[in-house]
Amino acid sequence: MVKQTYSKVSTNNHIAEFVSRVRAGDVRALSRAISTVEDHTPESTDLLKALFPYSGNALLLGMTGSPGAGKSTLVDQVARVYRKQGKTIGIVAVDPTSPFSGGAILGDRIRMQSHHADSGIYIRSMATRGSLGGLASTTADVATVLDASGRDIVMIETVGVGQDEIDIVRLADVTIVVLVPGMGDDVQTIKAGIMEIADIFVINKADRDGAERVEREIRAMQTLAVRHDDWTPPIVKTVATDGSGMEELAQAIEKYRSYLEQSDRARQRRIENWRVRIAEMLRDALFQRVLSYYLSEGEATRYAAEVADHKRDPYSLVERIVEGLGRPDERN
Amino acid sequence: MVKQTYSKVSTNNHIAEFVSRVRAGDVRALSRAISTVEDHTPESTDLLKALFPYSGNALLLGMTGSPGAGKSTLVDQVARVYRKQGKTIGIVAVDPTSPFSGGAILGDRIRMQSHHADSGIYIRSMATRGSLGGLASTTADVATVLDASGRDIVMIETVGVGQDEIDIVRLADVTIVVLVPGMGDDVQTIKAGIMEIADIFVINKADRDGAERVEREIRAMQTLAVRHDDWTPPIVKTVATDGSGMEELAQAIEKYRSYLEQSDRARQRRIENWRVRIAEMLRDALFQRVLSYYLSEGEATRYAAEVADHKRDPYSLVERIVEGLGRPDERN
Repeated sequence: MVKQTYSKVSTNNHIAEFVSRVRAGDVRALSRAISTVEDHTPESTDLLKALFPYSGNALLLGMTGSPGAGKSTLVDQVARVYRKQGKTIGIVAVDPTSPFSGGAILGDRIRMQSHHADSGIYIRSMATRGSLGGLASTTADVATVLDASGRDIVMIETVGVGQDEIDIVRLADVTIVVLVPGMGDDVQTIKAGIMEIADIFVINKADRDGAERVEREIRAMQTLAVRHDDWTPPIVKTVATDGSGMEELAQAIEKYRSYLEQSDRARQRRIENWRVRIAEMLRDALFQRVLSYYLSEGEATRYAAEVADHKRDPYSLVERIVEGLGRPDERN
Repeated sequence: MVKQTYSKVSTNNHIAEFVSRVRAGDVRALSRAISTVEDHTPESTDLLKALFPYSGNALLLGMTGSPGAGKSTLVDQVARVYRKQGKTIGIVAVDPTSPFSGGAILGDRIRMQSHHADSGIYIRSMATRGSLGGLASTTADVATVLDASGRDIVMIETVGVGQDEIDIVRLADVTIVVLVPGMGDDVQTIKAGIMEIADIFVINKADRDGAERVEREIRAMQTLAVRHDDWTPPIVKTVATDGSGMEELAQAIEKYRSYLEQSDRARQRRIENWRVRIAEMLRDALFQRVLSYYLSEGEATRYAAEVADHKRDPYSLVERIVEGLGRPDERN
C-alpha cells in the first residue's frame, strides 16, 4: 500500500518533469512524448492528462487527398510560409500505404529533412503498421502533444482513402482536400465523405492539363453537397513544387480561420469534434477492457472454435457477455 | 407479460418463415435479409442467430487491391468460371470510394447486371456512406447471410486502401490481392498490411508494360514477409477484360483450398478469424451500450463542451465512464 502510494508520487514527479521539458521546447523530450503516446505505454494516459491543459492554442490544419497529389510537398511549402511569419510548426504525417509506394514517400520525407536544422519545424511520421483501430485517436493525441508543446500550427497530413483518414482530418480546425488533374478517374479515388469535409480545396499540379475539369467537378459537387454553415469552400490552384499559389492558400486558410472566429463557430466545431473523439476514445477503451476482463486469450480461442465449428452462434454469445455487465449504477 | 410472450412467439414465427424463404433461394427474401442486416434493424440479430447454423458451407473468397486494378471485372470472370462448374455465387462489393471515381465503378456494376437473368449469381453493392465503424462486421454478417442462403461461393470485393478493407478481406477463407502494372507507384498505393494477407497475388492487365516489374516487387517482398504457414502465395497474371489467366486463377484458388483442407488449416484459419470478429462484435455491442446508458446525447455534448473549453480533460473522463461499467459477473 505504501509502496503503491510512493510509486504514484514518483510517477507524478516524473510526469511533471517530462511535461516541463516538452513545454520548454526540448525536441528530444517531445519525440519521446510522442512515442509514449503512439505506443500506448502505461504512462501515456498520465502524460496526456498532464499535457492536455496546455493544449488548445495551436491551429490544427488537416490535409488529405489522393495518393500522389503532392500533399507532402504542399505541407512543406505551407510550413515555409508560416516559418516566414515566425510561427512554429508541428507536422504529423500519417501514411498507411504500402511499401509499393514507399519510394516516393520516403523521397519526400528525406527532402523535408532539409528543415531539420530549423527547430521551428518538427516532423513526425506516424507508424501505422499493425495499429488495430484507434489510428484517429492516436493521431489526435499526438496532435495534442504538439499543441501542448507550444507549436503555433499543427499540421496533420494523410492519404484520403479510408475511414480512418476521414476521422483523422475531421479533428482539425481547418480541413484541406488536395486533388490533382490529369491522372484519370482512378487516381482521383478518395473516400466518399472526404469531399464533404473540405473547408478548402486545393488543385495541386495545376499547371497540368485537366485542372479546369477538376475545378468544374468540384463546383458541380458543391451544388449538391450540404454544409451545416454558409461557408463555400474556395478552390486554390497550386504548383507545390515551385511554390505557386502558396500565398493564396495561406490567405484562404486565414480567411476560414477568421470566419470560424465569428459567432463562436470555432468553439462549436471543436465541441462537435470532441463529441466524436470522446465517443471514439470510449470505444477504444472499451475494446481494451473487453480484452482484459471479458474475453481472456483462452476464452476467446475456445469461443472462436465453438463458433467456427458451428456449435455456438456468435450473436447470442456477444449478447450474453454484454448482458452479463448488468446495468450501470445510477450515478453514471 | 402475456403480450410479450405472444409477441416473442410471433417474432420467432416471422423469423422462421423469413429464414425458410432465404434458404429456399427466394432472391427477394435474400435481398430483404441483407438489407435487414446492413441497416441493423431490430430484427437483424434474431435473423442472424437463425441463419447462422446454416452458414459455414460456402467458400469465402476475398478480393482486394489498388483502385483501378480491375477487381470488378476479375470478380465477374471468376464468377463465370464457377457458374460453368454449376456452382452458385453471391458477391458483396464494398466500395467506400468517392463519387469522383463513380463513373467507372458504376459502369462495371451495370455491366455485371448482365448476369441478372442468371439467378445463380447474386450481386450486392454495400452502401458504406456514413457507416461509423463496424463495416467489417456488417460485411461479414452479409457474407453469413449469403452463405446460409446456400450459395457455394461467396466473393467479397473491396478496394484495398483502408484498415476497414483489411479487416473485411481477412475474414475470407482465401484472400486474393490484385495489383496492376504500368500505372506508376502512386496507383499501386494500397494499405500496408494488405500484402501480408495475400494467399494469391493477381497481376491484372498483365498485357501492359511493367507486369514483370510488379512480379519482381512481389517476389522481393515475399523474401521479407513472414507467413505463419509454409504456403508461398502464387502470382497469377490475368487480363480480366478478355478472360486470360482465369483458369490459372481458378486453379490457384483450388490449390490453396486443398492446402487449407490438409491438417486442419481451414478450421484453424476460421477459428483465428472468429477470434478477431467476436472481439470486434463485442466492442461494437459495448459501444452501443455506452451510447445507450453511459453517454446520452445531452451528456456527450456537455462533456464535449467542457473538454473543448479545457475545463475537463478527456482522458480522465473516459477512464471514469469505463470504470463505471464495473466488472462482469464471475460466470463470464
